[in-house]
Amino acid sequence: MTNEERMVEAALRSWKLNEERVDKFFQALSEEQLQREVAPGRNRLIYLWGHLAAVNDALFPLFGLGPKLFPELEEMFISNPDRSVEKIFSGAELKQITGKINDSLWAEFKRWTPSEWLAAHTSVSDEDFIREPHRNRYSVLLSRNAHMAFHLGQAILVKPKR
Amino acid sequence: MTNEERMVEAALRSWKLNEERVDKFFQALSEEQLQREVAPGRNRLIYLWGHLAAVNDALFPLFGLGPKLFPELEEMFISNPDRSVEKIFSGAELKQITGKINDSLWAEFKRWTPSEWLAAHTSVSDEDFIREPHRNRYSVLLSRNAHMAFHLGQAILVKPKR
Repeated sequence: MTNEERMVEAALRSWKLNEERVDKFFQALSEEQLQREVAPGRNRLIYLWGHLAAVNDALFPLFGLGPKLFPELEEMFISNPDRSVEKIFSGAELKQITGKINDSLWAEFKRWTPSEWLAAHTSVSDEDFIREPHRNRYSVLLSRNAHMAFHLGQAILVKPKR
Repeated sequence: MTNEERMVEAALRSWKLNEERVDKFFQALSEEQLQREVAPGRNRLIYLWGHLAAVNDALFPLFGLGPKLFPELEEMFISNPDRSVEKIFSGAELKQITGKINDSLWAEFKRWTPSEWLAAHTSVSDEDFIREPHRNRYSVLLSRNAHMAFHLGQAILVKPKR
């Protein structure tokens, strides 16, 4: 393995680890438990789960992999705050949805060469990318990974103290 | 820049971004505010701040950069849970301490070549590293970065809702 391949592997391992922790945590909760807030007046667990699904789904167009699989996630879990959209997905639905999103992403992620990882994402123009080459897929992967960890840290507070 | 240099840059950018968010959040709090718990019966903000400082300080020996700068952090904020150690650092002290730790780490981080980033960390043996080459400094940087985001997500819940 070359150095750049090892670095792709490191980022993918970290991504997979966080994604699996998110899956494991939320999938174990009942619909009722998913209604709990992470802090008084803050997001419910169901919203955080949907939010992470929505942000991952948005990686398809951002990475040039095609359209989102579940475009309705955006309105439910990104562009509107919790409790403002009448009908959102249930836990049972999110389990299916996140499975499909994460499996499809992973299949693509495993395929890319280091140079493909370092290519521009689709929201940066060719001219901007010349000046700002850090606006690549690899950087997005790292920041979305930290984003998963950020919300997982919140979600986990709802569990009983060890 | 080579691909591997771009990947080091991406990881360092992500690290710096999270580190600065942590600094900014905690430094703005009074000693009184730092006594607040992130959730009922859970860690106080002062403990989370000290915990992040302690984990970063532990990178010096783990990365072969020498001893910890503030070895007493470990007992206060890692090996013992919150409220079980009588005397812990104040917010004013942690501000100084985290500044020194983060500045020193950053000075080292900026210096390493991609191959140095992919070298084994000090808690893996030479034989194990042959079988498990992912146990390198670069992987640790990514996982500590996610760890910072994890606790920052918790800390931020204490702020008034937007």
